[in-house]
Amino acid sequence: MTRHYNFCAGPAALPTAVLERAREEMLDYRGRGLSVMEMSHRSEEYVAIAEKAEADLRELLGVPSHYRILFTQGGASQQFAAVPWNLLGKGGTANFIDTGIWGHKAIKEARHLFGEAHVAASSADHSHLEVPRPEAIALSSDAAYLHFTPNETIGGLAFDYTPQVQRDDGSEVPLVADMSSSILSGPLDVSRYGIIYAGAQKNIGPAGLVVVIVREDLLDRARDDMPSLFSYRELAAAGSMINTPATYSWYLAGLVFEWLKSDIGGLEAMDAINQRKSDKLYAAIDNSALYSNPIAVANRSRMNVPFVLADSRLDKEFLAEADQAGLLNLKGHRSVGGMRASIYNAVPEAAVDALVAFMSDFEQRRG
Amino acid sequence: MTRHYNFCAGPAALPTAVLERAREEMLDYRGRGLSVMEMSHRSEEYVAIAEKAEADLRELLGVPSHYRILFTQGGASQQFAAVPWNLLGKGGTANFIDTGIWGHKAIKEARHLFGEAHVAASSADHSHLEVPRPEAIALSSDAAYLHFTPNETIGGLAFDYTPQVQRDDGSEVPLVADMSSSILSGPLDVSRYGIIYAGAQKNIGPAGLVVVIVREDLLDRARDDMPSLFSYRELAAAGSMINTPATYSWYLAGLVFEWLKSDIGGLEAMDAINQRKSDKLYAAIDNSALYSNPIAVANRSRMNVPFVLADSRLDKEFLAEADQAGLLNLKGHRSVGGMRASIYNAVPEAAVDALVAFMSDFEQRRG
Repeated sequence: MTRHYNFCAGPAALPTAVLERAREEMLDYRGRGLSVMEMSHRSEEYVAIAEKAEADLRELLGVPSHYRILFTQGGASQQFAAVPWNLLGKGGTANFIDTGIWGHKAIKEARHLFGEAHVAASSADHSHLEVPRPEAIALSSDAAYLHFTPNETIGGLAFDYTPQVQRDDGSEVPLVADMSSSILSGPLDVSRYGIIYAGAQKNIGPAGLVVVIVREDLLDRARDDMPSLFSYRELAAAGSMINTPATYSWYLAGLVFEWLKSDIGGLEAMDAINQRKSDKLYAAIDNSALYSNPIAVANRSRMNVPFVLADSRLDKEFLAEADQAGLLNLKGHRSVGGMRASIYNAVPEAAVDALVAFMSDFEQRRG
Repeated sequence: MTRHYNFCAGPAALPTAVLERAREEMLDYRGRGLSVMEMSHRSEEYVAIAEKAEADLRELLGVPSHYRILFTQGGASQQFAAVPWNLLGKGGTANFIDTGIWGHKAIKEARHLFGEAHVAASSADHSHLEVPRPEAIALSSDAAYLHFTPNETIGGLAFDYTPQVQRDDGSEVPLVADMSSSILSGPLDVSRYGIIYAGAQKNIGPAGLVVVIVREDLLDRARDDMPSLFSYRELAAAGSMINTPATYSWYLAGLVFEWLKSDIGGLEAMDAINQRKSDKLYAAIDNSALYSNPIAVANRSRMNVPFVLADSRLDKEFLAEADQAGLLNLKGHRSVGGMRASIYNAVPEAAVDALVAFMSDFEQRRG
């Protein structure tokens, strides 16, 4: 068996220790004679697995007790529909900060379903190379909430601040964050957010699972014309089991949370590792004549590092040689080209070291 | 490692051979150095896995070429919303046959979202112990489609015929079937249906995946106000990859399809095994003074066999002893009580033999 270094943007690398544990328990979960996949979601064993996962996530992120944690399905893209349905029941308009492809998709879905969406700020004028400054955020007067994407997975653009969200009269506008590609990469002050959601397939677990963290007082703002399974209030009331959840993915997410706690030592330790990893990779890019990354330094993503080669005719060779060297999935998103190294929590520092060494070697030979 | 016999209604037993294969490939898929869970859904390797799964399912069920196969998420319950959104775009009313809890939930969701739903026939008058006869099905004059549940998982009630669905003028009303708990249990004439959908967690794979089989000409009947991810047309156009699908569950479904083809020998062979299994279990129930099943013989489910003990005070003891004997998850659904043995494809005939032997022994000792 070989484990290569996997820089995929998602579905992304999982910790080897987690996969080993899953393998060990695959046919017989702790002597119970069946796989976790084969358990009733309402069984005592499975409910214990689900509750432990939730408790570990709550502990890791320091989620306050007046926030509910939901485990649902459909990817973050389904939340592009679910969020407005859950928050526009008392009127008002959805507000957005547009910082790239994912932020834009959220806007598009809100417009598709509800006709309007207000773009309170956009980095489009700067080709999505830097995030809008706080003073540029112009909410609509009837803003029901402000949605943003702290880390744009494709562009590699990250917020270096948490937006202020008050109306002129000082009243609060709930902040909603699509944290699919940055959640659990470091400590987080959950209390600054109304809703945090994240597709699992980057820092949480396998694709198909979505985590939603919602402040309890927001549960009564829903429209009543949404699919029942989209309702945060109903999901919260049912412990995320209105119907059968994605049980195995939830279990694997729980193994990842355990790994973060036990093997890594929590989110401050994870933060330090992620900082070292991204510092090393950006230094390698910046100190090279062949590689470059166009993002404003303050807004560079620690999770997704896009870079281009000065001569794009070398792209194919770079990718083929990287693959040969066991450095997988470095090809940039089809919409932007070039390269992208996604260095999520489960990508070890040794992978970044190997990538940096490969890049240097490639440049010496071919740059 | 021990593998007990698992009679869970869902998430249900999976073939041991499938779990062994998944275990073997967990950390390194065929020498590629990563888990299937860690693959980009757009990678060559993963697309090959996804396409093979679809092709095998198409072969197994003999799905005609003018039907599309979609792999989506959210459980069958999400289809309770998606089906009317996809079929009511040209007006008309959703029609239903109500045969129990799942049929009823589909009706409830259609009413919740679209205000009305016509119950064309119901088995409620017969306490859901027999299905309505064909001549009792009274469509509304503006029926857009007829939805039914060929096998009610909780009640253990199954159709012994495929409803006729024509209007008085002979025009076709598309038939929509929630086949979550019966798909792949035997051969099927797909051409009689407009849409077939099924949550995976009984006969297909792990929870979180849903398979939808839809006739192509129905793709243009959608309302335009639905969540983008619900659109069969968009799912079909994107090869079920509008966004990241539940990649690992799709892979496991593919392993189950391979198992059905290679280990079982196809759906006719599976059908014969399922017939023997259910014949043996119903015979044990009918020949006993302690156990009984109330469903009309012609409508007894081959997949879900509910039964009660003549003295319900013995229930607890029965369940505890069965569990001790390695016969798991025989407790009936919380809404009906008693026992239920779900004997899906992955529950081997030996499991039914062991259950029948246990029931007989228990009756002799305690009946």
